[in-house]
Amino acid sequence: MNRNGGNELGGKEVKVANKRRIGACESVLRILALVLTLSAAVILGVDKQNKVVPVQVLETLPPISVPVSAKWHYLSAFVYFVVANAIACLYAALSLVFLLANREGKGITGLVVVVVDVVMMALLFSSNGAAAAIGVLGFKGNSHVQWEKVCNVFDKFCDQAAAALVVSLLGAIAFLLLIVLAAKRLHNK
Amino acid sequence: MNRNGGNELGGKEVKVANKRRIGACESVLRILALVLTLSAAVILGVDKQNKVVPVQVLETLPPISVPVSAKWHYLSAFVYFVVANAIACLYAALSLVFLLANREGKGITGLVVVVVDVVMMALLFSSNGAAAAIGVLGFKGNSHVQWEKVCNVFDKFCDQAAAALVVSLLGAIAFLLLIVLAAKRLHNK
Repeated sequence: MNRNGGNELGGKEVKVANKRRIGACESVLRILALVLTLSAAVILGVDKQNKVVPVQVLETLPPISVPVSAKWHYLSAFVYFVVANAIACLYAALSLVFLLANREGKGITGLVVVVVDVVMMALLFSSNGAAAAIGVLGFKGNSHVQWEKVCNVFDKFCDQAAAALVVSLLGAIAFLLLIVLAAKRLHNK
Repeated sequence: MNRNGGNELGGKEVKVANKRRIGACESVLRILALVLTLSAAVILGVDKQNKVVPVQVLETLPPISVPVSAKWHYLSAFVYFVVANAIACLYAALSLVFLLANREGKGITGLVVVVVDVVMMALLFSSNGAAAAIGVLGFKGNSHVQWEKVCNVFDKFCDQAAAALVVSLLGAIAFLLLIVLAAKRLHNK
């Protein structure tokens, strides 16, 4: 009886330790998701570049200097990217507060958090895909549809957008890991 | 004792019935995901349009008729879209076979299926985002970067690409629902 009691206690202790470890992992991942999505939204949100480029209007005249500028809100894919990252960042903050206030995560609320995590991951991956597609066009252009590359002119703007994309991708992966962790936690229950 | 036994039996029956219902839902969702991603890959994979457009080379000369064509593999975002849908379709078929062969879904294999479902959903949503970003450019163009719209010329091609995008989005939502269902199943365990 004592032996069984000892085993039971040991099993309970291991379960509690496992639960704590998973809880700590979840907190770290949520903080990472919050920081990464916030950084991505800010990096692209403040991205702009002004340049003066020479434009040849007529062959007989010297080229005219034209000021051109690149801003994130000129492209709808970049607007979607910034909005999606801002929403994911806000949700990461709210879910972190919720997690700390309700450490048990029992009942229907735990399930709701997992479902919203999945929706946020979908939102982030689709916005990353959209920004990456525009980024590839900006860097390489496309001769078939006569869309010229623009990153030879707006080099700083493009580099900053690429950095935002990498950071947001890491944020999306943090959400993916949160879902895998939740699945593991529910599976081991 | 009898009463308890009866309650226990009733509880077990409800659990078995619930498990069967969830299993049936999962099979239907996997078949849907398979059909939708296959359709999306095929709809965009066979999409092409040839046209003859008049091009004005010199103002003093009459316009020259130039044959132009639109094919899905001209744009890297569309290649990514077709490949992502083909991979998701192949995985949906394999996971369906696995589900039917291993109805219990116990042990580590059930968890692995959930994790790969999450990865497939991420892949599909990012490819949908990429294709949608290119689609918006094709339909509307962008004056800031001088990318002209092309869907006024390639109308049939664009409509077919839009149809593929809607179908693929539904396939991605089927994967999302599969993950929600798995979370619910694990939560109720």
